[in-house]
Amino acid sequence: MFEAAEAGSKISRDEADELLLQLRVDLINAQYDLREADFPVLIVLMGDDRPGVSGLVNRLNEWMDGRYIRTHVFGAPTDEELQRPRDWRYWLALPAHGQLAIYTGAFALETILERLQGAIDRPELDRRLRHMRRLEQSLRDDGALVLKFWIHLPRKTFKKRIKQSRKKGGGRLDATDHLIFDAYDDLMPLAEYVLRKTDPGGAPWHIVEGTQARYRDITVARIIRSALTERLSRPPAPAAAASAPPAPTVAPEATVLDAVDLDATLTRPEYRATRNALQARLRMLTRRAREAGISSVVVFEGWDAAGKGGVIRRITQAMDVQDYRVVPIGAPTDEELAHHYLWRFWRQLPRAGRMVIFDRSWYGRVLVERVEGLVPEIAWQRAYTEIDDFEEQIAERGIPLFKFWLHMDREEQIRRFRARERTPYKKYKITNEDYRNRERWGAYRTAVNDMVQRTSTQFAPWTLVPANDKRFARVKVLRTICTGLAKGLDEG
Amino acid sequence: MFEAAEAGSKISRDEADELLLQLRVDLINAQYDLREADFPVLIVLMGDDRPGVSGLVNRLNEWMDGRYIRTHVFGAPTDEELQRPRDWRYWLALPAHGQLAIYTGAFALETILERLQGAIDRPELDRRLRHMRRLEQSLRDDGALVLKFWIHLPRKTFKKRIKQSRKKGGGRLDATDHLIFDAYDDLMPLAEYVLRKTDPGGAPWHIVEGTQARYRDITVARIIRSALTERLSRPPAPAAAASAPPAPTVAPEATVLDAVDLDATLTRPEYRATRNALQARLRMLTRRAREAGISSVVVFEGWDAAGKGGVIRRITQAMDVQDYRVVPIGAPTDEELAHHYLWRFWRQLPRAGRMVIFDRSWYGRVLVERVEGLVPEIAWQRAYTEIDDFEEQIAERGIPLFKFWLHMDREEQIRRFRARERTPYKKYKITNEDYRNRERWGAYRTAVNDMVQRTSTQFAPWTLVPANDKRFARVKVLRTICTGLAKGLDEG
Repeated sequence: MFEAAEAGSKISRDEADELLLQLRVDLINAQYDLREADFPVLIVLMGDDRPGVSGLVNRLNEWMDGRYIRTHVFGAPTDEELQRPRDWRYWLALPAHGQLAIYTGAFALETILERLQGAIDRPELDRRLRHMRRLEQSLRDDGALVLKFWIHLPRKTFKKRIKQSRKKGGGRLDATDHLIFDAYDDLMPLAEYVLRKTDPGGAPWHIVEGTQARYRDITVARIIRSALTERLSRPPAPAAAASAPPAPTVAPEATVLDAVDLDATLTRPEYRATRNALQARLRMLTRRAREAGISSVVVFEGWDAAGKGGVIRRITQAMDVQDYRVVPIGAPTDEELAHHYLWRFWRQLPRAGRMVIFDRSWYGRVLVERVEGLVPEIAWQRAYTEIDDFEEQIAERGIPLFKFWLHMDREEQIRRFRARERTPYKKYKITNEDYRNRERWGAYRTAVNDMVQRTSTQFAPWTLVPANDKRFARVKVLRTICTGLAKGLDEG
Repeated sequence: MFEAAEAGSKISRDEADELLLQLRVDLINAQYDLREADFPVLIVLMGDDRPGVSGLVNRLNEWMDGRYIRTHVFGAPTDEELQRPRDWRYWLALPAHGQLAIYTGAFALETILERLQGAIDRPELDRRLRHMRRLEQSLRDDGALVLKFWIHLPRKTFKKRIKQSRKKGGGRLDATDHLIFDAYDDLMPLAEYVLRKTDPGGAPWHIVEGTQARYRDITVARIIRSALTERLSRPPAPAAAASAPPAPTVAPEATVLDAVDLDATLTRPEYRATRNALQARLRMLTRRAREAGISSVVVFEGWDAAGKGGVIRRITQAMDVQDYRVVPIGAPTDEELAHHYLWRFWRQLPRAGRMVIFDRSWYGRVLVERVEGLVPEIAWQRAYTEIDDFEEQIAERGIPLFKFWLHMDREEQIRRFRARERTPYKKYKITNEDYRNRERWGAYRTAVNDMVQRTSTQFAPWTLVPANDKRFARVKVLRTICTGLAKGLDEG
């Protein structure tokens, strides 16, 4: 795999000068066109030649207009980063449509070194590679142009540089470079494995020889130019909504919702006593979670007026303000629309010891966006896997994830709509849209069924909550969270 | 000061029910109107009654539409926060126009406790209070509605709660609450001092008694309602630009720029040798800075085509990519326009051990925005003090700050404009605007003079760089940074 990048390829100074004149104009023009485009560009720069990668980043910033490049250097994870799933920092830094970002730093190399030193085992390595591959796949599916470069030094050249640096003392090489050279023969096969495993299919890494800086920089720049201009010349994708009339959904004979016992109720005294006990327990548990640095994520979905707000208040009442954050999910902002739809949820993941409560969530993709035809079928079909990846990463960090669907029947819903309209300060909660949604009850029922069946995993199961009786629903949710948190604390 | 909040004020349940009906409708309506308004709302909730504050936050989120409130709880600073100036986290969380944010948590109280325990001395306390006061002043000047509440418990009530909690074990009170009660008699006078000192003039804290939760919550909510509706009823401020024709500036007889020796040059061999030596030194120093966790901030301002980009590249060439970030400052985005103008610069402050290089900066306020009349005079006049505060906080965190003005004469500028127009990949750098700016040379000269005179402080001096000769300029900048970094490392 690396052989082709060991040929001692060079470009003469004269040739370079001539090439560069056009190359720089093309790159700059492409950058300006990109700013109006509807896709982001992500360039990943890595390699065994670390000083080479650093030089390349500098050069690209010089040749292109540095004002429109965002360079992110990912080094050893910070404390904030260690408290979130591994890919959190990559998600947060993602370029929006029309933007170009460079990702560089240690990330793939770090993983390779960790594996070499036995700090992680093969399954862990494979898991990480799968996440990288899936992340790239998600971005591509979303329209991003992703280009990956690996700057490679042949053994001989590397050896020469190591020798020089020993003679002159220091220079551009540091301890990690020496480590890489010492492990070169074991490292390169592993690097090959990593590069192969992080190709999501038809999007391999470009391996570029680092022996001559001029060749390295110009080669990478030319690949960027051709990929970028090719992509810019394509007609923009048709607007998603237009291409996707809501699929006529046949309501399935039976759904998972049928099994929910909507007759479940609690008397007021039962409710009071149980709720108070559970709230006290929750308070104690969330304090312990704070001290133990265990965070948690709670997701609420449900029919309009099923009582999500009321349930959430019964949770937060019991907690210290510093221990939770409620994140209401409405229509995305312009900035959010210019990113992958999961981006805004990644940004909200809690730091150690905190609980984040989502009032509606990423499941909007397979609920409202599916039912209303806001995205093409291919997009929401894909979402089940993407969501699974996202939740798996949360679980891997030891963060308990609770998902509640508040279920009720249509009669109860209309009763509540009417009641809200009679309460002055609740009127604003009820809009025509609520009545429209109501008309699509059957389609939503199908979507909920699919969602629950396809995204109930061992690490992130759904809890279906009978919510015809608000008291019963609140107690059920409180109890589920208490039990889950206690389990997390025992294991953590 | 606290006496009025020790009267045992109460509201009966019936009275509350009646008040609430209207109060909640008003609050919700005001919230909806706010979303279209051109100012942000910041509500600060604090007090000796910590559980009371927590309960109040919950209640406000219940009474208002929680989806449009952002609650920020500031606890003990995180690692990321400790690497930046103290107010960094408050700046980052500021609401944009049309948004409402609640700031709560330990911050003022923390400072009081630190002072009580002797962890900080009086001058340090005063410095912090001055920063708080100035921050609020800046926000108000920028149009923000700021409301501050202190929830207070009379000694007797506090004592009763402490007793109850000892009997029942735990409850809502934790170790800090016990600490507060034990120090009550010393703490309250200090709290009074803090509250007085953080009034930027005519905007005192609202002290609300916490004895009865119902009274506390309704009182705070009513104050919010009246302040918010009053503010919303005011006509919007006239657009800044319209009200501010560029002031006719008389060029001063002599400016600080006259003293710059524009004839300074370096021969090519001199330049090569010195540059190489300085770059090697810079490389070594920035590595040491990374290891020592000392970050730095570099600001470049200067005439169009004075060579900022070239100088910046000579710095970054010498460094590891991970050790610096170049931040080019262009026209603000919509999001940035909806915040205080310093907000976007606060967001860019580096974490420990890194250098951030600003290609243009916050000085745009007193340069282009002043000269082009983009803001009223009162706004840019105010900016000198605001900038001073900002830079003082950077310096207090031990972060060296370098500010360079690249100076040249008009003849050299026009030569460079022409040269750029002849180089294909530099053409894009030259626009009609550059020629327009050139026409205002005299006005800019005055603005630069004022800027240098008014913002050269001991902790953040300006360096005026003769840049008619690019080589001389580059060496001068490299040397200044090396000397400053070395000094910072010795002291750090």
